[in-house]
Amino acid sequence: MIVPPSPVAESAARERLAALAKPTGALGRVEDLAAWLAACQNSCPPRPPERVRLVVLAGDHGVAARGVSAYPTDVTAAMVHAFATGTAAAGVLARQHGVALRVLDIAVDADLAGPPGVGAYKIRRGSGSIDVEDALSEAELDAALLAGWAIAREEIAAGADLLILGDMGIGNTTPGAALIATTFGLPPADVVGRGTGIDDAALARKTAVLEAAVARVGDRACDPRVRLKALGSADLATGVGFLIAAAQEGVPVLLDGLATLAELSVADEIAPGTASWCAAGHRSTEPAQRLALDKLGLVAVLDLGLRLGEGSGALLALPVLRSAARLTGEMALLTDLV
Amino acid sequence: MIVPPSPVAESAARERLAALAKPTGALGRVEDLAAWLAACQNSCPPRPPERVRLVVLAGDHGVAARGVSAYPTDVTAAMVHAFATGTAAAGVLARQHGVALRVLDIAVDADLAGPPGVGAYKIRRGSGSIDVEDALSEAELDAALLAGWAIAREEIAAGADLLILGDMGIGNTTPGAALIATTFGLPPADVVGRGTGIDDAALARKTAVLEAAVARVGDRACDPRVRLKALGSADLATGVGFLIAAAQEGVPVLLDGLATLAELSVADEIAPGTASWCAAGHRSTEPAQRLALDKLGLVAVLDLGLRLGEGSGALLALPVLRSAARLTGEMALLTDLV
Repeated sequence: MIVPPSPVAESAARERLAALAKPTGALGRVEDLAAWLAACQNSCPPRPPERVRLVVLAGDHGVAARGVSAYPTDVTAAMVHAFATGTAAAGVLARQHGVALRVLDIAVDADLAGPPGVGAYKIRRGSGSIDVEDALSEAELDAALLAGWAIAREEIAAGADLLILGDMGIGNTTPGAALIATTFGLPPADVVGRGTGIDDAALARKTAVLEAAVARVGDRACDPRVRLKALGSADLATGVGFLIAAAQEGVPVLLDGLATLAELSVADEIAPGTASWCAAGHRSTEPAQRLALDKLGLVAVLDLGLRLGEGSGALLALPVLRSAARLTGEMALLTDLV
Repeated sequence: MIVPPSPVAESAARERLAALAKPTGALGRVEDLAAWLAACQNSCPPRPPERVRLVVLAGDHGVAARGVSAYPTDVTAAMVHAFATGTAAAGVLARQHGVALRVLDIAVDADLAGPPGVGAYKIRRGSGSIDVEDALSEAELDAALLAGWAIAREEIAAGADLLILGDMGIGNTTPGAALIATTFGLPPADVVGRGTGIDDAALARKTAVLEAAVARVGDRACDPRVRLKALGSADLATGVGFLIAAAQEGVPVLLDGLATLAELSVADEIAPGTASWCAAGHRSTEPAQRLALDKLGLVAVLDLGLRLGEGSGALLALPVLRSAARLTGEMALLTDLV
C-alpha cells in the first residue's frame, strides 16, 4: 500500500508560497513543484534535493531485429561503457548537478566485461520480441520486479533524497509504447513515435509490430503484471519495481522519457498511488510519453523537444525543482518588506 | 552597427552535435541553444557560461496611480532592499547558480538610502504617466540609454560571459505592453495582461490606459526613440541601452519577462541585430511577452507560467544553457563508441 505525500505539508507550502514577497501565483508551475516536494518530504519549506541519485537501466529488446530503430543493438552495450566513463549525455548532466549515476545491465544482449557491479541484477540477454512472444517468463518478471525494488532500496539506503530513473536500450520505445497503449486503451497508431529518428518505412514496421503485439496479448493485457510480462521487457519491469519501492519508502522520483512513463503506467496500477510520488521532468516528442503524462495528470517541467532518455530530461529539469525548494525557504515574506 | 554571432562557429557546433553519442537531434531545443552559444562565443564547443551577471533595473511608473497594479508603488522601493539582501526571488536564484546580482535604482519614486551605488544611475523619481504625458524628456531618454550602455560595459569589464537583464517596478507591464503593441502594430486589447494578478476592473482600467497612451502618441510611435520616450520609462530605456551595448560588445544575453522583451523590441529597431545576441529564458503568462517572443522569432527555454520578472525566469533557465554547452563539449562522439 502506498501512503500518499502529506496533504498537510502541501497546504502549509501553498500558504507560505502565497505569503512570499511576490505577486500571488507569480512563480507558476514552480509553486506546484514546491508544494509537491513539501508534501513528499512532509516538510515546509521543502529542502532542496541535494543527494540525488540516477539509476539507468540498460537492456536490449527482441523487436530491434524487426528494424524498429535507426541504430543497431550493439549500441546498447557501447552506451553502458559511456555511462561508466561519464561521457553519455546523462553522465555529463549528472556531473553538472552533483548527481550520483549508476548504470545497470538488466538485459543487454551481450556479456559485458565491466564495470564492476554493472551486471549485479542482470535478468537475461535481451527481452522477447513482443510481436511474437512474451517479453519475459513469469520467473523473469518476478526477478525483474524484485531487482528494481532492491535497487531502489539500495539507492535510498545510500542517502537519496530524490531518485531519477532512466532507461537505455535500442528498441525500447516499442515495448514502452505497447505498455502505454494497453494501459490506457489507446490505438497503436496513436502512441507510435519515431524514437531514435526513424524514417517512414521504419515507422510503418514499428506500427505493425505494435499492432501485432497488442493483438497477440488481447484481453490478457488488462492485468498489469501480465501486460508487463507480455509487452514489456526486463529493464522496464525492473523500472516498475523501482518506482513502487520508491513510493513505498516515500522517496520522490523525477521521471524522464517514454520508458519511465511506461513504467509508471504499470506501477501505478499494480500499486495505486505510486504516481503521487512522481514528478515529470520533461515532455518528450514521443506521442506515447505525452499521452501517458496527460492520462496520469502529470505536467512536465520542461518541453524542449527532447527524445534521448537515459534520465537526461529529468536531469535537465532538476535545477528547477531545487529552485522551487530554495525559493520557498529563502525568499522574504511580503510582510517582511513593508 | 551590430556584428552578428559567428555563423561559422554555429555550423561547427551543429556538426559536432550531430556527431555526438546520441540519436540525431535527440536533444531538441538544447541543441539550438548550444549552437547559439557557440556562435556568440565564436567557439566550438561553446564554454558553459560561468561568469554570469544579472542587472535588475528598478523604477516606478506614473500609470501605477491609475490603479493598473494589484500592489502599491512603495513595494518597488521595498523590493530594492530585498534584492540587496538576497531575499527577492532573483536573489535566491542568483545565489543558487553563482550569478552576480546588481540592483540599480533607475527611477524609483523614493529617495533610497542605500545600498551604496544603487543610485549611481538614477534618472528621475518615477516616469511619466504615459496615458497623459511622455514617460521621459529628451534629455532623460538620452541619459537612460547612456546609463544602460555604461552599466552593460561595466558588467562586461567585470568579466561577464553572459548577461541577464531584469526589471522591477510596480506598473511596469503597462509601458512594457505599450512598447510591444506599438513596435509590432498590435491592438492594446491583445497585449494587455494581468501583470501582478489584477482583477477584471483593474484590467479594464489598464486596457483604457494603454489605449489612451497609444492614441496620444499616434504615428510618432513609428520612431523607436520617440516610442521609448513617449510610452516607455527610465528603467525600460536603460534596458534598451544595456541590450544594445551587450550586442555591440558581443556578449550574449538571456532575456526574462515582459519588460526585457519590450526593451529588445525597441533595441532591435534602434540597432538591428541586437536580438541575435539574445536568447529567451522563459515564456511568460503575459500576452505581450509571448507575442514579442513570436514576433522576434525567439523560442523560450521554459514555459512554467511565470510572471514575476526581476530576471527570475532567465535565472531558472540558466542551467539548461550551461547544460547545452557542457553536453556539446563533454559527450563522447558516436565514433568513439563503436
